[in-house]
Amino acid sequence: MGKVVASASMSLDGYIAKDDNTIGRLFDWFQNGDVELPTVAGHFTFHVSRPSADYWTQWVSQIGALVCGRTLFDFTDGWGGQHTMGMPVVVVTHQVPAEWVAAHPGAPFHFVTDGVAAAVAKAQEIAGDRIVSVTAGTIAGQCLELGLLDEVAVDLVPVVMGKGRPFFGDLAAGDALLGDPTVCIQGDRVTHLVFPVDRAA
Amino acid sequence: MGKVVASASMSLDGYIAKDDNTIGRLFDWFQNGDVELPTVAGHFTFHVSRPSADYWTQWVSQIGALVCGRTLFDFTDGWGGQHTMGMPVVVVTHQVPAEWVAAHPGAPFHFVTDGVAAAVAKAQEIAGDRIVSVTAGTIAGQCLELGLLDEVAVDLVPVVMGKGRPFFGDLAAGDALLGDPTVCIQGDRVTHLVFPVDRAA
Repeated sequence: MGKVVASASMSLDGYIAKDDNTIGRLFDWFQNGDVELPTVAGHFTFHVSRPSADYWTQWVSQIGALVCGRTLFDFTDGWGGQHTMGMPVVVVTHQVPAEWVAAHPGAPFHFVTDGVAAAVAKAQEIAGDRIVSVTAGTIAGQCLELGLLDEVAVDLVPVVMGKGRPFFGDLAAGDALLGDPTVCIQGDRVTHLVFPVDRAA
Repeated sequence: MGKVVASASMSLDGYIAKDDNTIGRLFDWFQNGDVELPTVAGHFTFHVSRPSADYWTQWVSQIGALVCGRTLFDFTDGWGGQHTMGMPVVVVTHQVPAEWVAAHPGAPFHFVTDGVAAAVAKAQEIAGDRIVSVTAGTIAGQCLELGLLDEVAVDLVPVVMGKGRPFFGDLAAGDALLGDPTVCIQGDRVTHLVFPVDRAA
């Protein structure tokens, strides 16, 4: 099976969004460079620096499925039925949004109502040997606590937000050890870092 | 005048200590290497990796004075009268600890009761063209908000703590922009990063 990776742009003080789910300056690096990266779904085009373009292109090319929570799904209205990156999405939810499903026949969205571990298993079934990308926030925190993560990919942004939604949600206090970063690539207003997680630890 | 730099070991989720001021796994990198670094005050010896030894030695050699808050001063009991790094210390406090001062005659500690900006000014007077190192936490947050910081030096540790004391304390919400890191050195269980702050911004 492919790796399970939690990924997001994160401020230096550990936030992936403001409390109202807006992102402030976290995505500046997606629009401050010379290299055009059209998104698969065609919604819009990123303009990133060369190092970020190379890193991002390789990262996206390895993903086979996404796992997200219901908050993000609702906030984006399910990306209108097609995720920005053109990937199948597994949504962790208490209740399947029947109206949305009816309105978007054939959309590659899967709703899992029996918890995060089941959602990751479903995503791995879809992804095969490709990466399952888990959205940062509550879901990533739960995956970390359940020992489901292989890596944490942080696009570290040099901004201090002061408040917001943490990368690992409301993680129970306790030290979760990661390894030293295996990737460290400097873009423009972003440092791409990938930390391995020892699943046996 | 020398630069004003806020510095600390920080978890990936932005904490410099637990809520009870203990440091969990944050200082592992000070004792996991082959290179001996005796502290100036002779209290103990660090054992760090070669990259961390080189980085740390250069960093400490540039410091002329430290600024800390009363919480840290009390927690360490004023380092017994001599800071671990053998530096003069300016303590931001509401009240001078008269008993402590009487018990430690000649100790290079200065107590400033009229706020963080005055404490930094006093430290700069002492440090001359050397660096003033500001302890992370509330004091660093206040310095950032007051536009007093030139750099933020983060020893980023691959651990997720979940809760604790943030690097910039209870910073008022709002995006404080830093620059991309000018230093990125990988040690063993630590990544040394230095971010410039645009004081004019």
